[in-house]
Order: sequence, then C-alpha cells, then structure tokens
Amino acid sequence: MKTMHPLDPLTPAEISQAAAIVRSRYGDQDVHFKVITLKEPPKSVMVTFLDQEHRNLPAKSTPVRCARVDITIQIATGGNELHELFLDMDKGSVLEHRVLKGKHSYVDSTYMQEVEAACMADHRVQDEIRKLDLSPGASVVVEPWTYATDGENDMSKRVTMCWFYLRLLEHQDANYYAYPLDICAEISETLEVTKVYRLPSSPNEHIHHESRAFDRRKIHSTTASEYHPDIRPNPRTSTKPYKVVQPNGPSFKINGNHLNWEKWSFRVGFNYREGLTLHDIRYDGRSVFYRLSLAEMFVPYGDPRAPYPRKAAFDLGNDGAGINANNLKLGCDCLGTIKYFDAWHTTRSGEPMQLPNVVCCHEQDDGILWKHTNFRTGNAVVARSRILVLQTIITVSNYEYIFAFHFCQDASIFYEVRATGILSTVPTNIDYNLTTPYGTVVAPGVLAPYHQHLFCLRIDPAIDGQNNSVSIEESEPMPFDENNPFGVGYVTKSHYVEKEGGFDLDFTKARTFKFVNEANVNPITNTPVGFKLMPFYSQMLLADKNSFHAKRSEYGQHAVWVTKYRDDELFPSGKYTMQSMGGEGIASAIRNRATVGDQDTVRNSDVVVWHTFGSTHNPRIEDWPVMPSEKMVVGLKPVNFFAGNPGLDVAPSTQEVNKSVLYTEEDEGPRRGASRL
Amino acid sequence: MKTMHPLDPLTPAEISQAAAIVRSRYGDQDVHFKVITLKEPPKSVMVTFLDQEHRNLPAKSTPVRCARVDITIQIATGGNELHELFLDMDKGSVLEHRVLKGKHSYVDSTYMQEVEAACMADHRVQDEIRKLDLSPGASVVVEPWTYATDGENDMSKRVTMCWFYLRLLEHQDANYYAYPLDICAEISETLEVTKVYRLPSSPNEHIHHESRAFDRRKIHSTTASEYHPDIRPNPRTSTKPYKVVQPNGPSFKINGNHLNWEKWSFRVGFNYREGLTLHDIRYDGRSVFYRLSLAEMFVPYGDPRAPYPRKAAFDLGNDGAGINANNLKLGCDCLGTIKYFDAWHTTRSGEPMQLPNVVCCHEQDDGILWKHTNFRTGNAVVARSRILVLQTIITVSNYEYIFAFHFCQDASIFYEVRATGILSTVPTNIDYNLTTPYGTVVAPGVLAPYHQHLFCLRIDPAIDGQNNSVSIEESEPMPFDENNPFGVGYVTKSHYVEKEGGFDLDFTKARTFKFVNEANVNPITNTPVGFKLMPFYSQMLLADKNSFHAKRSEYGQHAVWVTKYRDDELFPSGKYTMQSMGGEGIASAIRNRATVGDQDTVRNSDVVVWHTFGSTHNPRIEDWPVMPSEKMVVGLKPVNFFAGNPGLDVAPSTQEVNKSVLYTEEDEGPRRGASRL
Repeated sequence: MKTMHPLDPLTPAEISQAAAIVRSRYGDQDVHFKVITLKEPPKSVMVTFLDQEHRNLPAKSTPVRCARVDITIQIATGGNELHELFLDMDKGSVLEHRVLKGKHSYVDSTYMQEVEAACMADHRVQDEIRKLDLSPGASVVVEPWTYATDGENDMSKRVTMCWFYLRLLEHQDANYYAYPLDICAEISETLEVTKVYRLPSSPNEHIHHESRAFDRRKIHSTTASEYHPDIRPNPRTSTKPYKVVQPNGPSFKINGNHLNWEKWSFRVGFNYREGLTLHDIRYDGRSVFYRLSLAEMFVPYGDPRAPYPRKAAFDLGNDGAGINANNLKLGCDCLGTIKYFDAWHTTRSGEPMQLPNVVCCHEQDDGILWKHTNFRTGNAVVARSRILVLQTIITVSNYEYIFAFHFCQDASIFYEVRATGILSTVPTNIDYNLTTPYGTVVAPGVLAPYHQHLFCLRIDPAIDGQNNSVSIEESEPMPFDENNPFGVGYVTKSHYVEKEGGFDLDFTKARTFKFVNEANVNPITNTPVGFKLMPFYSQMLLADKNSFHAKRSEYGQHAVWVTKYRDDELFPSGKYTMQSMGGEGIASAIRNRATVGDQDTVRNSDVVVWHTFGSTHNPRIEDWPVMPSEKMVVGLKPVNFFAGNPGLDVAPSTQEVNKSVLYTEEDEGPRRGASRL
Repeated sequence: MKTMHPLDPLTPAEISQAAAIVRSRYGDQDVHFKVITLKEPPKSVMVTFLDQEHRNLPAKSTPVRCARVDITIQIATGGNELHELFLDMDKGSVLEHRVLKGKHSYVDSTYMQEVEAACMADHRVQDEIRKLDLSPGASVVVEPWTYATDGENDMSKRVTMCWFYLRLLEHQDANYYAYPLDICAEISETLEVTKVYRLPSSPNEHIHHESRAFDRRKIHSTTASEYHPDIRPNPRTSTKPYKVVQPNGPSFKINGNHLNWEKWSFRVGFNYREGLTLHDIRYDGRSVFYRLSLAEMFVPYGDPRAPYPRKAAFDLGNDGAGINANNLKLGCDCLGTIKYFDAWHTTRSGEPMQLPNVVCCHEQDDGILWKHTNFRTGNAVVARSRILVLQTIITVSNYEYIFAFHFCQDASIFYEVRATGILSTVPTNIDYNLTTPYGTVVAPGVLAPYHQHLFCLRIDPAIDGQNNSVSIEESEPMPFDENNPFGVGYVTKSHYVEKEGGFDLDFTKARTFKFVNEANVNPITNTPVGFKLMPFYSQMLLADKNSFHAKRSEYGQHAVWVTKYRDDELFPSGKYTMQSMGGEGIASAIRNRATVGDQDTVRNSDVVVWHTFGSTHNPRIEDWPVMPSEKMVVGLKPVNFFAGNPGLDVAPSTQEVNKSVLYTEEDEGPRRGASRL
C-alpha cells in the first residue's frame, strides 16, 4: 500500500473526498470549485516531524492532513461570492469556513470563454467587425484580460477587458497577436458588454474618445510574424542532431515526491498557484532551506494611454503558475533521461483533474566544476559539473515563462527564469509618428509596449535549523593611513538585519545578503555557517509610488525583503490579487505589524527572505514574433557552511567515460575567401 | 598549397624566418626571444580587404605580412634591455626597431626557475628551512611572483618576490598552497637574494620586522587540503555517465582559422598575451564586430600588511593568457565532437614552439531557445538552443580561468569567465585572533586573503560597418500628470556618447549601453540598428585612487570605457605592465589626448568599448582546496538590428531527433522516511 508524506500534494482521491465534504455542506446550491489543494502543515509541527524522519525515528505525531478549498457561489444580485474552507481530511470535517467579501478568485478559463462568447455576440462588436471587411479565411479573436485596477470601475465585481486581434490566416495556430485591432470592450461579471470603443493608436492620445482612426490598411504580410512551422518557410537545416545519452540511467533516485541526487535531498510540491515548490532541502543530511518557491510575478505595462494602464498581470495571483503549467512532452522540452511529475487540480464540479507532466526532472552537464593544473608537473585534474534541473513552464496568454531550479554538486542552487513567448501588442498608427517613447514598433501597425516583469522568489532558509539571521556585508576600502600604508587594503563590514523591512542591492559595494545560523560557528573560519544570495540586479517597479500598480504589488519597491516566518504569509502582493485595491502586500504587512507593536527582532529567528528581480522589458524587434529566451538567474551559495569545496569528491573527468570525439577537417571544402600570401 | 589569411597567426615557418631576420641583425649578441607574433594589419587596410573578400572579389591589395618580435639583450650593468622589432615578412626586412628603456617583458618561466634555484641555494633560506625541521617526505617549494610596484624598490630592474610553501606529502601534485610558510625572499634581476625575512602572521602587523613568530606546529592534516585523486579518499560514485552524441557530426565548418556555424562566421586568432581573439564576426553576412578579446586581467590583493601589497597580478600583461593556456585534453575539458586549435609561440632561442590544443570549439545544448503554446489549441512549438563554444583555459600559478565565447542562434554572443583553481594563501597565526577582516581562514594556519579579479573585455563593434556610435539609454518614469493620468507610464531616454571617457553602470535605471550605426535605420522600428552590452555588474577597484594599484590598472575605475579606435590601443593598463609605475592605461590615454586637443567626437566614428567586470573575491571555505567555478557572464545582443527573431528559423525540437528517455521509478527501492497517513 502506498504511503504518503505530510508534504505530498492531495491525491485525486483526496480531492474527491474534499469536494464531497464541501458539497454536503452546501446542499442544493451550485458550488463552483476553484481550489482544492493541500494546506501545508504548520511549520512548528512539520519541523518536529522532519527531525524525527531524518533520524529514522517514528513520528511523535503525524500532522493533521488538511485541505484548503476555495469555491464560488452565485448570489442573488448576480455576482459571485468567494468562500474558503479548511478541511480536516483525517476526520472528514470542516475546520474553518470564511466568506471573502469583495475578493475574487483566480482567472477561470471556462468563464473567460463565456466572456469571449458574450463579447462576440454583442451587436456593437459585430458592427465593428463588419466594418473590418475581413478577407476570406480571416477571423477575429477576442483576448480577455483581467482588469488591473485603475480607480475607474467598481472592483467589488469582476470586470474583464476584451482586446481584439485578427487571425489573418485560416491556420488555427496563426499568430493573431501580429494583427491587433483598435477595438476594445468591457464585460461585466454577469457577462454584459458594458462598453465598446476604439483604442488610441497615436502616441499622444490619453483618452480613447480623442482617438484617430487606426489605419487598417496597414495589415502587413505574414512572413515575418508567424512562428508555427506549418505557415513558415522551411527551417534552417544546418543544425545537426545532438543527443544526450545516459547509458546507466540518471544519477537521481525518486520515491514519490522525494528526490535524492548527489548528496541533495528534497521534496517536490506543486499547487495551482505557485506551481512547483521545493521543501525540506538538505545537503549531505544538513538542513539548508525549508521551502523555496516563486511567490509572485507582476507584469505592469508602461503605456500611459487609457485603457492600457489596465494591463498589469499578476501571473501567479491572478492566473496561477500551477494551472497554466505546460505538459512537457518527452524530447521537446528536455534532453537525456527525464522524470515527469504530474499534478492534480479540480474541475468546476469538484472532480480531480490531472495536469500531466507539469514538472520535469533531468540532469545536465554544466561545463567545468573545478580544475587545477600543477604548472610544475603539468598534471591537470578536472571535474565536470553535473546539475539537476527541476523545471516547469507556464503559458500566460501570449507569454511563456520557463522556471528551473538547478542543483549543483558544489552545494549551490540556482533559480533560472527564461522569458519567451509572444509580446503583448497594441495597434499603432505608424504614419502618425516615427517612434513611440513607451513602445517598439515590431511590425507595421504593431506596437509592443514597454513593460516590466517583476518576479519574487521566496526563500525560507533553514541553515542547520530554523533559527537564522540575515547579515548584510559590504566590501570597503581601508583609509589610506598608517594601517594601510600602500592604500591597497580593504575589509568587509557587516551587520545583522534586526527588524523586518525592504532592502536594496548595491553592486558598487559588493553588498551581500547572507542567511546564517549564528549559533553554529564554522570551526575553521570562525564565522557563522551560512548561505548567500546571488541576486539578479534589476530595476525595481517604475510605476509611481502612488499608482495602483505600486499599491497593489508592493514587493516591487525593494530587491530584498526580510520578514519573520508566518505560516500563511506566502504571497508578497497578498493572497487575493485579482482586482485588488492595494495595501495587502509585504510592505503593508510589515508596517501593520510595526504599528501594533508586533515587530520582534528577526535576528536569530525563523526568517524568510524575498528576492524581487526581473527585467524592464523594452522590446526589441528581435523579440518578434516569438521572443528568444531572456535568462534571469538567482543563486544561493554556501558561505563557510562546509569544511571545504563540497564538490571536491566528484570524480575527475576522463575520456574513458565521456567518449568525446575529435573533429578533423578532412572532409571540409576549400577555404572561402582566403588569399594566398 | 596552403593559402593564408592576413589575420592568421604566424606559422612555425614564419616564426623561424622572423627569428633568423632578427638574429642576423644582432650578430654575436645573445638574443633572448620573448615574442614572435603577428602584427595585425592596420584596420584601414583590413576593412578594404575584408569588404572585397566578403563580396568574393579579388583583393585590391594584400596587407603586408608583418611580425612583431620582442627580445631581451643582456647589458653590461647586469640587467636586460627590452627591444621591440617590427618585420616585413614579405620582404624579410626590419621595419622598425625600438629599445624600450625601463620596460620589462612578460614573466619568463625559465627565468623563474632560475630565481627558484637561486633562492633555494641561499644560505639564509637554507637556515630557515633547517629550522622547519621537516618531516620525512616533506619539501619546501619556492613560488616566485612578479613584483607589484609599491614604491619601495627601483622598478627599472626586475625584482621577484619569493613565497615559500611546504609540500607535506611526497606526491608531486600534493597541494603545497595548503602549507604557506612565513618566510619571504626578494631576488634581484641578476639572481641575487637581496632580502630574506619573516612574513606577518597576525592581523595587525603592518611591517614585517614587528612580526610574531608563526606557530609552525599548526600544520594540519592533509585530508581537507588535497585535491589530486591519488591522495584523496575515493571519489563519490553516484554520478552516472553522461555522453553527448552527435551522430551526423557537428554543425560547424572550419577552414583553417575560419569558422562558419549557424549563420555566424568569424576568424579565430591567438597570441601569447591575449590568448584567444576573434575577428571579423558576421551574422548572416552582416558585419557585427571587428574584434573581440580579453584585454587585461588584474588581481590585486586586499591584505594591507607589507609585503602583501606587492601581490597584484596582471595576468595578461605580466603572465600572458596565450602562453599559459592549457592543453585541453580530449574528453576531460569538453563533451561531444571537439575541434582543437593549436598555437605557436617561440622558444628562448627563436625556435617555433607548439602550444597544442589551446582553444577548443564545440557545440552545446543550451535549453530552450523559444517556445509558445497557443492556449486556444494547446499546440506548442518549441525550439532548443544550440550554442557554439570557443574556449581557452589558462593556469596562472595557483588560479585557473576558463574563458569562453558562446555564439547563439538568436545572434547573441556571451562571454563567460569561470574562475577556479587554488586560492593564493598566506600563513596566519589563528591563536592570535579569531577572524581577520581582510581574509578567510580556510584551514588551520592558512589565510586566503581578500582580492579582486578585474577583467577587461575589449569590444570593437562594426555594426553594419565601422562607423558606429555608443548610446546610453535609461528607463525613466513619466511624471504623474495629465499625460500619465494613472501614474504607470515610463519612457526610455537616451543620449549619444560624444567624447572618450569612462562610464558607470546603474541597474536602478536599467541603464543600457548600445553600439549603433546611426546611418542605418531599421525600417520597421525606425531606430538605428545596433547591439547592446549586457554587463556583468561588479564592484570596481577598491584600492585607493592614489595607490600604485589604481595608477597602474586604470581601467578598474569604471565599468565601461569608450574610445576612438587606434591600431595599437589594445591594452587598458598599457602595453608593458610588468613593474609599471602607472599612467600608461586607458584613463591616461584619454586624458593625454584631451590635453593635446586630440579628442574628436566618438560619435559616428570607429569606436571601441571596454567593459570592466569581475568579482570582489572574499574567499569562502568552500573555495578550498580547489575552488568550484565562479561564473561571470557578459552578453552582446542585437537590438533592432534584424527584422525579427534571428533564431525563428531554427527547426522545432522533436523527440524523433532528440531521442530522450523516459525515467520510471520501477527499480527504485521503498520510499525513505515516509509515514502512512
């Protein structure tokens, strides 16, 4: 019989069980299930459990298996009410039941399809489409977007923005983002089309009513704007096959959601919102991190013209990295020997719904781990670096994000984000002005507005235990004086973070954030054992501090946030971001606690570190029609945690194992363009 | 018969020919050959030549084949005199002959061996060694270092610093850096041991004469400090084999030093100082860069105590990235199908000396190049990224550096540096103080002092031709006013660099340096075609501006330098860095030109961009005894140079080609530590 771990996601059977418990409570009411997910056990309980587990001792007590269920219920006034329930799965009972007035759940694809249909059925929309005088094979696509609060509508009800595009070719995967139309519609929660209007198409228009007509003759040919191989010219044939062969299988061992690889061990989690989560991360048996997760992503657009300030997506809070995770088909997304993890979500009616192959796990070669040649003997010793990749890829309408944790043999962890997919576009009248200061024209009539991608990586360190401190270290020149007679000396100065707050990066000072265990001093270096953050240097949120974007996102103000651990504090822009009004993020939480005097020192406590990073994405035409991956990498590295290089025992690299092949020029043709001297 | 290209390095025959020409000029004098290398043709000549070549037209004129020869001649007063000669290889004549008074050539391994021998033969040194009362099998190793000018000696003659280490085990590859001794010697150019003294071993000693005796009983056991597999415990066996198989061979084509790969074409160069250089880099036939090279590397140590301020290495200028390049043995340094390039240097007597396998060229898979899933159809299209790697690895005494250019299918280029090898160590008396503010104790009695690695990448852009401009762009919020009524708008503002100078990075403004061709406007974006620098954010030189370190290095003051191209301006700390006194670097050159009024605008001219980057390396114990690779990456990406994603035509990834393997858990054992719920 299968055994389970308290951190394992809910099984299909548990999802059904949870739905049944909830259904029985609501009787005849039409319950729309949004979330049925594991409520992770309180950390206090889990830490005891894990301590026993790692000592191979029986559990003192098994944490209660708890589920969180979000549902919506239709209400008399025509809207929906969001309810949240916590269930004791062992007893089959409801522990807590809350009605969340004014809050909205994440985007619902079924609802969005209804929005599209309602929009297309509207006579004003049909009038506008008729005016387009579409060529045969062309069709209009409605792209509904969640509404980024701008103060102009009542946010207690859902409002959906509908943008319009043209699918110029009959092919179902034709790139409709290449033909943005200048129509826009707003749809109410009850699927009424409340407004239909023209979008601005010249750089200086702030209010849509002033809009000049978009020149619809500007529709350009498809050659440059299609990405699907069916409707593209033949691809290049110069790229020869490249295979990864692992004759003895991979170096990892997997038992359910537990993974062992090269001295690392951890548990894989997954939920509808964060997608991939990692738990109880240890190296060589020593605790390093309690939990690692992407906590939020915010994508605000910089085009100031109404209604574009409504384009600002919380891709986790509004859309869900779990729900939108791709099925990673064998061989297309990865090479080598691959383990896929499935996940389970819920249907509207509470049936378990499989999300197949949402996480892949595989190894990669990563070049040289370490090398030294003794120049006196000429003898070289070189070890190659093998890394373990845990990857998930999400599609949020036009964009793709590739999220990967890389575990390394030297006990470092890297979190790599690659942004790819298609730019969000708006129509532009290029006759009007040659360039636009907040966007790039990527094809005739097509403007790709400037925007930012702001990610938040939540790091819950457990460096040799839960009680950790955060220190900030800088490298500083010594004064040029009698203690530094040649003016070349420099020292590190560091201080501990005492209170919760937001902090900034400064590479000019080599400012370094460390998570350390002050109680555990490395006997050789005489410093506390720790790990350090290798941040990704990024511009913070550009929107004004008094804008709704800033108030709603909050974490985008600083690159590093330090808080004291709280069981339910997982999201730096708040739990319910959909049409949120602001004041529910990490800055507010810290300020509120300070106000009520609930701000203990974070030193020698259970700290959490949140790293904000991303890109100010001012599109290049090279990002069109599908953007080449833009990499962003964050690192976590041991600092005086071990007694030496943790990868020193990796076996040196040999040709006997690697079987590399020597290239010779024998079958190359004559040299091009060469001249005889 | 073999044809040659004007950018091909000198052949062995040419090296012999050059030596003969020089020898004949010096008659009976003992000529010590230091350099026999290609003097690259003037750019004005080369550009015309390359234009004709790329149009498949006959050369209008072939550039004169020119060699540069550096020799030293012993002089009556006991020292050496450095001569530089330029030869016309076509005519077999000397074009120019200069005596470089007060300048020194690069480190000479033969000379260094003589220094070591002289040092060991000294009776004071022998006295000190006797006092060590070495155990059987142990031996003393002398490590000579070039002298970083500190104002305390006459720099017109060479002075060598000799540090002492203990090889505790009889094994010839035992890690002697693990046992630094507290003896130091200074050796004159004529191999006299001028001083022998004790090193400081406590943190507060500034002058060696005050030094407390180092506690030599602190010699620690070897287990933690050895890296050679012969004298290490057995390595881990968990890492299973991983092979790269390219059944149809690699995707590159090589003719001599010319390389074609996935629309890229360029020429591989190599010289004793810079090592690998790249020339005439084009994508799809369009010129992008004229030349890319690592121009300098400076490694100043931050320990203020005399004589440690003399530790500051110019690893290119003093040591030579070419001379110290590793022989990259098949299968140990790379996977897949590998092409190696050899290089040729000269012996002391002017014979051609082969440097085998100093550059390797191979392909790597680099994850996903681009992906999009149409959420309406569920159809995904994914292309994997193949990269071409041109790599060279150098050993400079204790340290290793791995330098690699990565060419990508999306027309971007990355320059990756990995620092590995062994930390430079000094003795420390750990009883005296628990920690040292300018170093890390990595083993009992062993201090790894703080230091910096400052690299300078020289970028000679040729964006659709030689006349380019550098623009600096920032992303800036719009004021919250009637033009930006929601406070979310932001714009880019940019200006052109008009004069030569040094510039700083600022990620808080998304400051971006672009190289553009103002005369060539992208017809879709309406902006000049260009490439941008993706810098590696690093702390600049910490040494005081008035220190010799700062005066000698110069480029370490700013992250980006912009200069107008000059044929012989290749080195940002000057051509002769050995015991240099300062004032010969890039800042001085710019200042001097401004002083004499020779400072034209750099806009729409032949610009060169120099990027300073690196690390403030405050060692971790995890860097011991061999440091896991520390990656530093600089990128060059097209910005509105093309008409769209240059990698769009890469064929989508398929399992048919990739042949990935599905992992199943069937043969895994029972789950560990799991509890039944």
